[in-house]
Amino acid sequence: MHPTSEEIEEIRLLRKSVAEFCKKEIEEHYTKWEKQGNIPRDIWNKLGNQGFLLPEVPEEYGGLGTTFLYSTTIIETFSRFGYNSIAANLSVHDTIIAQYLLNYGTEKQKKYYLPKMATGELIGAIAMTEPAAGSDLQGIKTTANYDRKQAAYQLNGSKTFITNGQHCDFVVVVAKTNLDVKPSRGMTLFIVDVPVSGFERGTNLDKIGLHSCDTSELYFEDVLVTEIAILGEKDQGFKILMSELPRERLIVANSAVASMEGIIEQTVQYVRERELFGTTLASFQNTQFVLAEVATKARVQRSFANECTNLLVKGELDTVIASMAKLSCTEVQGEVIDHCLQLFGGYGYMTEYPIARAYADARVQRIYGGSSEVMKLIIGKDLFS
Amino acid sequence: MHPTSEEIEEIRLLRKSVAEFCKKEIEEHYTKWEKQGNIPRDIWNKLGNQGFLLPEVPEEYGGLGTTFLYSTTIIETFSRFGYNSIAANLSVHDTIIAQYLLNYGTEKQKKYYLPKMATGELIGAIAMTEPAAGSDLQGIKTTANYDRKQAAYQLNGSKTFITNGQHCDFVVVVAKTNLDVKPSRGMTLFIVDVPVSGFERGTNLDKIGLHSCDTSELYFEDVLVTEIAILGEKDQGFKILMSELPRERLIVANSAVASMEGIIEQTVQYVRERELFGTTLASFQNTQFVLAEVATKARVQRSFANECTNLLVKGELDTVIASMAKLSCTEVQGEVIDHCLQLFGGYGYMTEYPIARAYADARVQRIYGGSSEVMKLIIGKDLFS
Amino acid sequence: MHPTSEEIEEIRLLRKSVAEFCKKEIEEHYTKWEKQGNIPRDIWNKLGNQGFLLPEVPEEYGGLGTTFLYSTTIIETFSRFGYNSIAANLSVHDTIIAQYLLNYGTEKQKKYYLPKMATGELIGAIAMTEPAAGSDLQGIKTTANYDRKQAAYQLNGSKTFITNGQHCDFVVVVAKTNLDVKPSRGMTLFIVDVPVSGFERGTNLDKIGLHSCDTSELYFEDVLVTEIAILGEKDQGFKILMSELPRERLIVANSAVASMEGIIEQTVQYVRERELFGTTLASFQNTQFVLAEVATKARVQRSFANECTNLLVKGELDTVIASMAKLSCTEVQGEVIDHCLQLFGGYGYMTEYPIARAYADARVQRIYGGSSEVMKLIIGKDLFS
Amino acid sequence: MHPTSEEIEEIRLLRKSVAEFCKKEIEEHYTKWEKQGNIPRDIWNKLGNQGFLLPEVPEEYGGLGTTFLYSTTIIETFSRFGYNSIAANLSVHDTIIAQYLLNYGTEKQKKYYLPKMATGELIGAIAMTEPAAGSDLQGIKTTANYDRKQAAYQLNGSKTFITNGQHCDFVVVVAKTNLDVKPSRGMTLFIVDVPVSGFERGTNLDKIGLHSCDTSELYFEDVLVTEIAILGEKDQGFKILMSELPRERLIVANSAVASMEGIIEQTVQYVRERELFGTTLASFQNTQFVLAEVATKARVQRSFANECTNLLVKGELDTVIASMAKLSCTEVQGEVIDHCLQLFGGYGYMTEYPIARAYADARVQRIYGGSSEVMKLIIGKDLFS
Repeated sequence: MHPTSEEIEEIRLLRKSVAEFCKKEIEEHYTKWEKQGNIPRDIWNKLGNQGFLLPEVPEEYGGLGTTFLYSTTIIETFSRFGYNSIAANLSVHDTIIAQYLLNYGTEKQKKYYLPKMATGELIGAIAMTEPAAGSDLQGIKTTANYDRKQAAYQLNGSKTFITNGQHCDFVVVVAKTNLDVKPSRGMTLFIVDVPVSGFERGTNLDKIGLHSCDTSELYFEDVLVTEIAILGEKDQGFKILMSELPRERLIVANSAVASMEGIIEQTVQYVRERELFGTTLASFQNTQFVLAEVATKARVQRSFANECTNLLVKGELDTVIASMAKLSCTEVQGEVIDHCLQLFGGYGYMTEYPIARAYADARVQRIYGGSSEVMKLIIGKDLFS
Repeated sequence: MHPTSEEIEEIRLLRKSVAEFCKKEIEEHYTKWEKQGNIPRDIWNKLGNQGFLLPEVPEEYGGLGTTFLYSTTIIETFSRFGYNSIAANLSVHDTIIAQYLLNYGTEKQKKYYLPKMATGELIGAIAMTEPAAGSDLQGIKTTANYDRKQAAYQLNGSKTFITNGQHCDFVVVVAKTNLDVKPSRGMTLFIVDVPVSGFERGTNLDKIGLHSCDTSELYFEDVLVTEIAILGEKDQGFKILMSELPRERLIVANSAVASMEGIIEQTVQYVRERELFGTTLASFQNTQFVLAEVATKARVQRSFANECTNLLVKGELDTVIASMAKLSCTEVQGEVIDHCLQLFGGYGYMTEYPIARAYADARVQRIYGGSSEVMKLIIGKDLFS
Repeated sequence: MHPTSEEIEEIRLLRKSVAEFCKKEIEEHYTKWEKQGNIPRDIWNKLGNQGFLLPEVPEEYGGLGTTFLYSTTIIETFSRFGYNSIAANLSVHDTIIAQYLLNYGTEKQKKYYLPKMATGELIGAIAMTEPAAGSDLQGIKTTANYDRKQAAYQLNGSKTFITNGQHCDFVVVVAKTNLDVKPSRGMTLFIVDVPVSGFERGTNLDKIGLHSCDTSELYFEDVLVTEIAILGEKDQGFKILMSELPRERLIVANSAVASMEGIIEQTVQYVRERELFGTTLASFQNTQFVLAEVATKARVQRSFANECTNLLVKGELDTVIASMAKLSCTEVQGEVIDHCLQLFGGYGYMTEYPIARAYADARVQRIYGGSSEVMKLIIGKDLFS
Repeated sequence: MHPTSEEIEEIRLLRKSVAEFCKKEIEEHYTKWEKQGNIPRDIWNKLGNQGFLLPEVPEEYGGLGTTFLYSTTIIETFSRFGYNSIAANLSVHDTIIAQYLLNYGTEKQKKYYLPKMATGELIGAIAMTEPAAGSDLQGIKTTANYDRKQAAYQLNGSKTFITNGQHCDFVVVVAKTNLDVKPSRGMTLFIVDVPVSGFERGTNLDKIGLHSCDTSELYFEDVLVTEIAILGEKDQGFKILMSELPRERLIVANSAVASMEGIIEQTVQYVRERELFGTTLASFQNTQFVLAEVATKARVQRSFANECTNLLVKGELDTVIASMAKLSCTEVQGEVIDHCLQLFGGYGYMTEYPIARAYADARVQRIYGGSSEVMKLIIGKDLFS
């Protein structure tokens, strides 16, 4: 199920239209957004207008009914142009939350949330990580106790590192609903429309990079949610989260590859123009060898990322292969961008240069969506199963 | 042009039959062959009997008329089982020399050499490298001067690192036939049947590994060859050699991947069984993390190698992508096997363990068939073209 | 000339007093300074009060007459505590500019500048790098033409990446004074008191890290300077700059080692406390192995940095060994801090954690003060001299 | 306690005399020895004649009464010239076994063994490792049961990877003498003069490298040893072995550094002479950068190795620092020699080139004397103690 030539043409056009959007709507503002720590609220609506938000969702729910190839193309194109914050915002909204809703939501939930998410009217966030539970999801402390009197669950807990935390209109919250069983069997997902009484957003966290991708702590104190807010079945939250992991990890891997490719292109361009010792930087053998190495690495990762994308489209991407993709592509991304930055010399350290942003943005790729260590745990476990 | 499901089944059977051959004809003798520095002459005939020598050559010339998928499967299977010397011997005979003959030979040459090469009656060698010209092919000093009186070329020069140098029945020799033009336009390939007057084989060279893949110096002193011994056109040797480079490099890359895969499998097995500190070596997190990393690296290279194989079958593998494959797969092979060896502890250093042989064999993969540095020159040049 | 036990005790006390200064004057404000992109002007005076600014300068010029051991201890302690911006500010002021003045200044220059630099009344900057000339110092375009009528030099040119560019009270400017000879023989250093007519400061440049170490472009348009502003002899600027390189490079190397040491200490502490999967992060073998590796690397670099420091104190540190120190210590710093950050997970990416700042700060160490590539040029040249 | 200038001169002369010995007694034979898998028996006597065998042992026991600086200089010089097998043979004989005897032997044992070891009349081996117990010394299965009737211990067990196993005249055997306590408290060292009834030498094991350093399995079946054969006290064997570990590890580290230094020197020489593309290999920037990197790495390791040597001489080298030295120096050795080999191209793979042997020899340095993983266990444990 490799892409047909028709699909390849469509993808080419899509890439072009995202590129134009970048040129028109993002380029001149991005530095400002990075400084303010957020993209403007209305950019979401513009993304929606273009059909960039939920392409895979069927048309009846406001999407375009495409395959994963379209979502990943959109996100990759933003990464390729260096707008990693937008890629990250979109990944959460589109490839994570919309998929949960689509695959596990009630008809009512789907009819309500998805079309509004597709237009950008509603922005979603997913609240898993807690101050004391990152890699170890089962160690979360947030609870949702059912209170018979109020016929509602009372959500209590703190979440952290929540992408879209400042802008989100609803949050999918992971909470423990049964403390008597092992955690993986006692977690539930709740869709919490915010603002709501007892809910509070922390400040936008200051990060090494991804500056315009807002990241926040969220606090829940006796937040009441009724049964209809449950996403999927009660106590089945862990299973649901697991089921979407391959996709989440692949999108990180794919954006990693796209980012490298964009940066290598820019670096080749830069060293051609940069003059040094009476010649160009490109004419030094070290420059050529370094770029040959990173171009090779990027090309090899591209091959694997494409293979995984095809597997996902065919419904055959398993957790282990997806973990390999995330591990490999993000580790190589770190390496490649570090080498490229070095070729820019002092300019590579100046934030006005995209290479500097790409470097700062890249560091979190090995951490979020399951750290490299978690990937190794999964792959290692599989080797000895 | 990905393999069809029918082809996939055929390949599976082929792999099985090579594996059986290894079990029956090689396993118990290989250590002895490694010590003696050669495989026995008659193993060539046995390989021929099985149809393992020239599968791609059309049936009219004694082959099976298959695609490259079959040659690479045969060679990869030998590598996977740790018989890298046989893989190397075969690569030269099959994927290099037979292809030159097939693509550039006269009908008479094809009719004579190919069927005998397919049965193992004739073994070929290719003599490019010279003591003072390895990476720099254009720097060779061997000449073939046309002597009118004798109506023949007089070959003079020394060649080194010649695989199959001890066993070969004919040598394809690269020599300069025109010293007045730039070297790339004045080289010719000659098919020299040996032994012949003026030809001498040096001793079998002692190497770090690949012990049973004989490697020799060859000396040519006034060796006479007539015009009919020319392979391709006069002065076109360089072009011919270049035209087959992608295939030669891919076969090295593919054997690198197969070798890693075989070694990782053995290492997983070993650490499961090896007891240490009251548990197994497999139960240590370091063991699992190291193996997760190398399994990931091997899997990613496999993806790229497969993509390149498909490109070659479609006739679309260019020199730059093939160079990336050789560079990447052999560098990763070195890394992966080094890590695996370490997990074997002292046993990893003992030649009776296949891991030790795989390590010693692997080191030359980054050197022959175009060193990693030559690959970077090619890739770097392309980036700035 | 290893430190005597008396010196060792003095150094211990000095380290303690810098640590107290950090605690009292920096700790609670540093995040704010990092945001505003500058340390407050009066922190310079406080540093001066403590004797931290120019310890090596003889007492007659306002210093303490110590050895290099004291300057490096002060700067290393700031790095160790994560205040790399202050370390960088100080390095320029103390180990670079004060040394030029001390070794090449006229008595009048020394008497005027050094005492005020020691108290923090005057802050110095050095303006070498230009937009089109970084690694290639001889490629600078700034000129100082002597105008007979005005009996003064007219400075014209742009400089970039100038540390202390916002706060400096005088700038040592490198300019070409003779265009007819090869650049290394036609450069002169001028001490320019600023502000002055024709001089302009660009904005404070936005960087990946070192946020409170201001870095600016400086513009000179027909700035007039008389002969008494020359530092050292006319046309001897290049030689002067070269003569102080070993010291400049060693101070970067030493601060790199101190930074690693501080970060490793913090990471060991963090993983001990961080709970995960029902135990601590410290109890995982991967954590212990990673920290064992980085602790070893840091310890080895410390050994070499100390050897180089002793050589410098004895007046025996040559350019090649100093280049090795800069290359090695900063490369290892990058590696070590990257590994440590990973152990912090998501927190490692949040700027409020010192590890995040240390990571962002570290990236420029391989670039400024002579990039890793320039170090390799120097070392490689020496190998073949 | 850095070496005095007098010592430095003595060391220089010693180095020169070892170099002369190499030239005169080893150079022309080494290839042959490597093939036969052993150095000739009488080379031990020649080493003894030169005073190279037990320099540190006091004169009353036949030594020269020098410091560790002399033993390490001798061993390093052999490594530097590429005679790693001799360095390994000597390390066991001199820096391990002689030290056990000197520090824990009875006066009678010292008077008997040491003078004969110093002349080369007796060759020692140490038998710790067993087929199922390498890194895990406490897991050994060899026992020594006291038999009252015979008033002797009965030794039973198999040992493997025993250096000097073919030539040794006595073996220090580690055996369990008390199975009721934890292993570290129930091991004893026995000096077994061989041949003796019940003792058998296995074949000389085939290894990747160190070909002339014989390595064997040794078998003990009801070998009788009386109480006077105990080295140190009964049940104190583990403690004795531990006490000498820093020295054993440092000697491996030091030989690693010496080997790198020798190889770098040869590589610089080779690339200067090797012609390629109409110039020399040395003139390529990649060559210069690679050599600059490896020269820097070797230089940094040298600094640390020297610091550790000084610490040992002062009696201050602890297990953790020694483990760092072994880990770091041998890992870097592997890296450096791999890079150098690559610059030799095809010649680097031919055993007749010292670089090929150095590569093959180097691989075991990360394994024996405590593998890199064991070093990390020790260092990691210390970080969290």
